[in-house]
Amino acid sequence: MAHDLERIKLNARAIRESGFDALICGLPSNVLLLSAGYWPIVGTSFAVANGEGKVALVVPEDESELARKTGAAEVFTYKPASLDKLQTVVDAISEPLAKAASAIGVSGGRIGCDIGETHQPASYISMHLFGSSLAEAIGSALPGSNIEDAKRLLAKLRSVCTSQEVDRVRQACKAAQEAFEAAGGALRSGQSEIAVASQARLPLYRDPRARDQQHLAIMSGPRSASAHGAYAISSDRVTQAGELVMVHCNCNIAGYWTDITRTFCLGKPTEQQQRMYDAISAAREAALQAIHPGARAADVDKAARQVLSARGFGDQFKHATGHGVGFAAIDHNAQPRLHPKSPDLLEVGMVFNVEPAMYMENTQGMRHCDMVTVTDSGAEVLTPFLSDPREMILQL
Amino acid sequence: MAHDLERIKLNARAIRESGFDALICGLPSNVLLLSAGYWPIVGTSFAVANGEGKVALVVPEDESELARKTGAAEVFTYKPASLDKLQTVVDAISEPLAKAASAIGVSGGRIGCDIGETHQPASYISMHLFGSSLAEAIGSALPGSNIEDAKRLLAKLRSVCTSQEVDRVRQACKAAQEAFEAAGGALRSGQSEIAVASQARLPLYRDPRARDQQHLAIMSGPRSASAHGAYAISSDRVTQAGELVMVHCNCNIAGYWTDITRTFCLGKPTEQQQRMYDAISAAREAALQAIHPGARAADVDKAARQVLSARGFGDQFKHATGHGVGFAAIDHNAQPRLHPKSPDLLEVGMVFNVEPAMYMENTQGMRHCDMVTVTDSGAEVLTPFLSDPREMILQL
Repeated sequence: MAHDLERIKLNARAIRESGFDALICGLPSNVLLLSAGYWPIVGTSFAVANGEGKVALVVPEDESELARKTGAAEVFTYKPASLDKLQTVVDAISEPLAKAASAIGVSGGRIGCDIGETHQPASYISMHLFGSSLAEAIGSALPGSNIEDAKRLLAKLRSVCTSQEVDRVRQACKAAQEAFEAAGGALRSGQSEIAVASQARLPLYRDPRARDQQHLAIMSGPRSASAHGAYAISSDRVTQAGELVMVHCNCNIAGYWTDITRTFCLGKPTEQQQRMYDAISAAREAALQAIHPGARAADVDKAARQVLSARGFGDQFKHATGHGVGFAAIDHNAQPRLHPKSPDLLEVGMVFNVEPAMYMENTQGMRHCDMVTVTDSGAEVLTPFLSDPREMILQL
Repeated sequence: MAHDLERIKLNARAIRESGFDALICGLPSNVLLLSAGYWPIVGTSFAVANGEGKVALVVPEDESELARKTGAAEVFTYKPASLDKLQTVVDAISEPLAKAASAIGVSGGRIGCDIGETHQPASYISMHLFGSSLAEAIGSALPGSNIEDAKRLLAKLRSVCTSQEVDRVRQACKAAQEAFEAAGGALRSGQSEIAVASQARLPLYRDPRARDQQHLAIMSGPRSASAHGAYAISSDRVTQAGELVMVHCNCNIAGYWTDITRTFCLGKPTEQQQRMYDAISAAREAALQAIHPGARAADVDKAARQVLSARGFGDQFKHATGHGVGFAAIDHNAQPRLHPKSPDLLEVGMVFNVEPAMYMENTQGMRHCDMVTVTDSGAEVLTPFLSDPREMILQL
């Protein structure tokens, strides 16, 4: 990614307006945000950003090449481990922390930090987490500073993507398209969910920027009925003819995430399944029509919910119509929240999912979850594939 | 897993001896530890444990079935999300937190919590993290309690596995064996690292308890020379005849992890490669011989390091000989640390890796990393496959 000046400017303005003297963040998605493109691997990095658009990164030596690629930050390296002594990461960062802050003129004052509750996409198979220790390290390196949880500011910043960031999400959606097509090609009755998911997932790994943190899960038959929970996991259940099969994917390119679902039917749909498809298509269309800059996110939820209610599926639509994605993957509190009680207003560059769904207790469920971004002229669907219910009917 | 009474007893004794009135932990690996078998998915769960072996779990409704399987804890459920209001997880847990604590007689006092720096294996593609908010929630639910970071106690507890826990690690090692054999079957010159890794990874997904959090990476030729860093990631580099190819895996069954590496040679090894293989085999053997209950972990490191130094590879062995695995995946600070400066003593049930290695700057690297547990009679190798250098030579 070429130097994303748009991101640096957005951050700097928000920092100035918030009254913070600087942000110092260690969670990978926040480092990605502040550095305009560097997604840490292990989680031992952190970013210092001020209101003038200056950014300093402190990163372990083995991530320095990756960190330098953003071009938007001065990079300081350190050694998290040594054969000469036993040390933790926090032991090792105090000196580079002081140096990085000083390099961009941060010497104390009000420092915003990511220390509280959060949702964090996995950046590697195992992650270092600073927890409350980052605030302690800042306290030692910048004595007298006032350290606050900056979650409100960070959540707002993560809710609007720059055009380069949307482009990364778009690339991740392309990879997902291949995976959904692979799932459609592999799905037959008599196979285990796990086996199909393992095969369908392969296209998600083709881009080296994708790392291994890709998720594709299959929930068939009655399992699709309980797919309104927070997570989606495949089981060894064997699919059967006539069933609905939900395929869910959270994939990323370079730390920018998707949240996509399609529901296939293993054979000619029953009348009930056809009614479900039609209702979801109509709810999707109503939600997309309601999306434009300045729209209330709650009104987008309402548009989808009214259609499903009018067709008798109101009680079965058990969750909100969508939530922010991009920097987040499955965080239903990520802004904008397309939720009945949401105060959020839509802005150009917001990236979120639109997921009308219905879950019939113990029998079957259906969800169609698209990735969408807001443009001047309304909703742009980033996942314009397998959008017609008829494409998702698999003859056996 | 049948109720793991051994784990509950170990925890209770440690809590009593530490002077804590209770532990309240929210990071998945600590919930797994305290609950004796429940590995949270999304990270919105927490465990309360006291010194009498009583454990209460607070879990989102969609994880309650999984949580009840451990049999070792009373389970309280809550709803993290609602259509009636916007709320965060921490908003939603205050009532169940008070109830769970009260159910096992915890009303305040010294509460140990997991709020500081840590390393955490990914339990799902995106994780909720309580951060410092869990301590705040405890402060509200149990006013007057004294909340401390319990990292020392937790690190010690995670360092010794029960026999049921070792068994889970053993199952994960079995899955890894299939993956390494698949890698050996798929490796040929002229293929990209990513393509081989994607195929070799498939066996890791066969057990539904494994979830999607499985990692297998390939670093070939000069990339193997820099594989001493904290992470291993495949690239789109194409392998060439004569090269060394490092295959690294961190996989898990139900939250119990492995850390395994093998190095293959694409064709007949050169004299230098043969010397490397032989030195690593000898270093491995020396380390394994040094392992027994009561041994100093530093002496195991010394045993391997001396062999490599004597054969001229001392400077190229750039990291410690091993670290705790099981509850951890890639945390070089997990106990026992087989490190020159380690104060750790080996105990029966400890699970760690033994990873003699050498990295020749810019040219090639080799590592042989086994999973090992300590038994009364010494080291038991949990990964007794592809242990002979000759098995890792692939004719082209």
